[in-house]
Amino acid sequence: MHKELLENVRACRPLIHSITNYVTVNDCANMLLACGASPIMADDIGEAAEITAVCGGLNINIGTLNERTIPAMFAAGRQANALRHPVVLDPVGAGASGLRTRTALRLTEEVRFAVIRGNISEIKTLAQGRGTTKGVDADPVDVVTEDTLDAACAFVKAFAAKTGAVIAVTGAIDIVADGQTAYCIRNGHPMMGSVTGTGCQLSALTAAFVTANPKETLRAAAAAVCAMGVCGEIAEKRLGAQDGNAAYRNNMIDAMYRLDGDTLERLAKCEER
Amino acid sequence: MHKELLENVRACRPLIHSITNYVTVNDCANMLLACGASPIMADDIGEAAEITAVCGGLNINIGTLNERTIPAMFAAGRQANALRHPVVLDPVGAGASGLRTRTALRLTEEVRFAVIRGNISEIKTLAQGRGTTKGVDADPVDVVTEDTLDAACAFVKAFAAKTGAVIAVTGAIDIVADGQTAYCIRNGHPMMGSVTGTGCQLSALTAAFVTANPKETLRAAAAAVCAMGVCGEIAEKRLGAQDGNAAYRNNMIDAMYRLDGDTLERLAKCEER
Amino acid sequence: MHKELLENVRACRPLIHSITNYVTVNDCANMLLACGASPIMADDIGEAAEITAVCGGLNINIGTLNERTIPAMFAAGRQANALRHPVVLDPVGAGASGLRTRTALRLTEEVRFAVIRGNISEIKTLAQGRGTTKGVDADPVDVVTEDTLDAACAFVKAFAAKTGAVIAVTGAIDIVADGQTAYCIRNGHPMMGSVTGTGCQLSALTAAFVTANPKETLRAAAAAVCAMGVCGEIAEKRLGAQDGNAAYRNNMIDAMYRLDGDTLERLAKCEER
Repeated sequence: MHKELLENVRACRPLIHSITNYVTVNDCANMLLACGASPIMADDIGEAAEITAVCGGLNINIGTLNERTIPAMFAAGRQANALRHPVVLDPVGAGASGLRTRTALRLTEEVRFAVIRGNISEIKTLAQGRGTTKGVDADPVDVVTEDTLDAACAFVKAFAAKTGAVIAVTGAIDIVADGQTAYCIRNGHPMMGSVTGTGCQLSALTAAFVTANPKETLRAAAAAVCAMGVCGEIAEKRLGAQDGNAAYRNNMIDAMYRLDGDTLERLAKCEER
Repeated sequence: MHKELLENVRACRPLIHSITNYVTVNDCANMLLACGASPIMADDIGEAAEITAVCGGLNINIGTLNERTIPAMFAAGRQANALRHPVVLDPVGAGASGLRTRTALRLTEEVRFAVIRGNISEIKTLAQGRGTTKGVDADPVDVVTEDTLDAACAFVKAFAAKTGAVIAVTGAIDIVADGQTAYCIRNGHPMMGSVTGTGCQLSALTAAFVTANPKETLRAAAAAVCAMGVCGEIAEKRLGAQDGNAAYRNNMIDAMYRLDGDTLERLAKCEER
Repeated sequence: MHKELLENVRACRPLIHSITNYVTVNDCANMLLACGASPIMADDIGEAAEITAVCGGLNINIGTLNERTIPAMFAAGRQANALRHPVVLDPVGAGASGLRTRTALRLTEEVRFAVIRGNISEIKTLAQGRGTTKGVDADPVDVVTEDTLDAACAFVKAFAAKTGAVIAVTGAIDIVADGQTAYCIRNGHPMMGSVTGTGCQLSALTAAFVTANPKETLRAAAAAVCAMGVCGEIAEKRLGAQDGNAAYRNNMIDAMYRLDGDTLERLAKCEER
């Protein structure tokens, strides 16, 4: 299934509006270009809704959120909902500060999201209405393992049913689910954690996939997660003895640029449960 | 002619103040360093004019413009005019939102620009006072081809005459013109469109070239456009089978770092018409 | 001594809160990851102090400072002081504008810094209460040479004694000193000046080193400076004939990712005087 979903991104070249953090924004833009989409970033309330209107999809990422950009997130989200454009939420660091937790929660109340993608601690924070994440990585106690996978899938499905959004929880094992179906994805490489913003890049990518595949939100989100993981694997194989996380960052974007549908189909490790 | 113009940049190492978007700012800074210039970024109204005053040239780019940085653009622009420093405008996304169109138009009214560089849709938006660009790429209907080149040159010359600025319209064929003379440049590679911010980098580069060549604004702007295109060609030749747009981004900056005047002179495809 | 100090960073993986400029923020985050630390960026007054509280150390960098982020710097700095977390100041461009000079001076008055790291012109501006730096590079007249090294060491020690902070002045020869002891470090490569933000990266790295080595602030700061310089040397050796400052930027981060304690110990050129 992944092959067609990627090929649709390459064919329709969706224009994606991102309101995102300034730490990883350049990589998000280049990752969107690598998958065949086109990026535009605009975070001022004076133009956010208007930019959303000329795009196909919207990606809201709350890293480095601030009093100036938060209203733009709501305005763009409402506009996207009115136009029935898919919206992705990346609740970066939800649980690490009250501002992030409150903003992410209010966004889920006032904007209808197609997909919410985060690490397990961020998603638990949204589900529980509070959290205590340290920083932008998942808390060790929350991490999904083979032992806790069934319980985690049930939790993700339940939160998906409650929100009406596809939920993508990424980590060593990724879970992408709506209220009925969960995909467990075992692609990727631990070194992805050594590059800032691989999660942000995945959220941008997910926005491109769900925009280009409007009736397949669950499968498109799963395909985006597989594609990112496959690129993480290809990128690792290219590393030389002196290469580190900077080369790896470039290799991942390059792998996405070169990724074809057949390779994605062959390497994706995506199990329904 | 290009050789000396580049060598002047390397020799005088102009300090360039950029008020620019946070998406591509790092690449702009490294591209300025690659060509021999020195970058400083400062966008707060509390220091913008003062920073302009210690620099040799100013580069205003309206990507991710916002209510906080717009007044800084005007203050810096006025200061640069008062000190007779060259100012470059990159009207990123003019036509895609009212805020961008209005801001770019007001800038052209209140600040005297040495060079305005954009894609054809952005420049048409400025010339017509309105536009409907989708995103930050040129509209397909606007694209300059060999068939429409004469008409496009006439349009660019007329707009240059009206504004008093050198106008640089970049695309598959670039046009750089003042009111009398147009240069058509056929350097570059389509893959430049797969890297975010190659236009932004070119605008920063143009600011360096016109600052280092104060009496040669038209030819300096044309040389900057040739240099960027030549680097796009060199960068493409270095790509391996697994390389993509991330490697290409690095290769372009590296090509500028290594570019010498003779190579630029030899590879530049610049026709006067 | 450097070996253990680096190994402590890798072992304790400190979480570092950076309030930093948007030009070089991505490289700072990846450099923190490369050394084994974990980055979080947050600059809104609504969360800055709270984010500081969940981190181990704080890095304040005044590049692209603005009216929105300055209060966040003070709030985070005070919180870090209250919790006895080490705080690093990078006074980027102090002396180039009144806003930067005043903000840096006020920060040194209201926040207790573990380390202040800058080029010689920035540090002189802080010591003298005023300055006239052009841009973000050191003024040629200020540059530390073998001839002026003794006087420079005395100046740095005196300013360290006055502020109570370790002072790190970086340039061709680096000086890291408290009131009693100065280390002169002769690592690094001139090409580091061709990459935007190597100073910013070093400040972030210094925050990681002093956070992971709480009772060794002086030696930890010196080790960070040595480590950055050693990476600059390793990165240069890897450059091919067509590589430039973009490849060099990646190579430096990769060198830090691969750097082990024994290599650092062997290559560090650190003299006490």
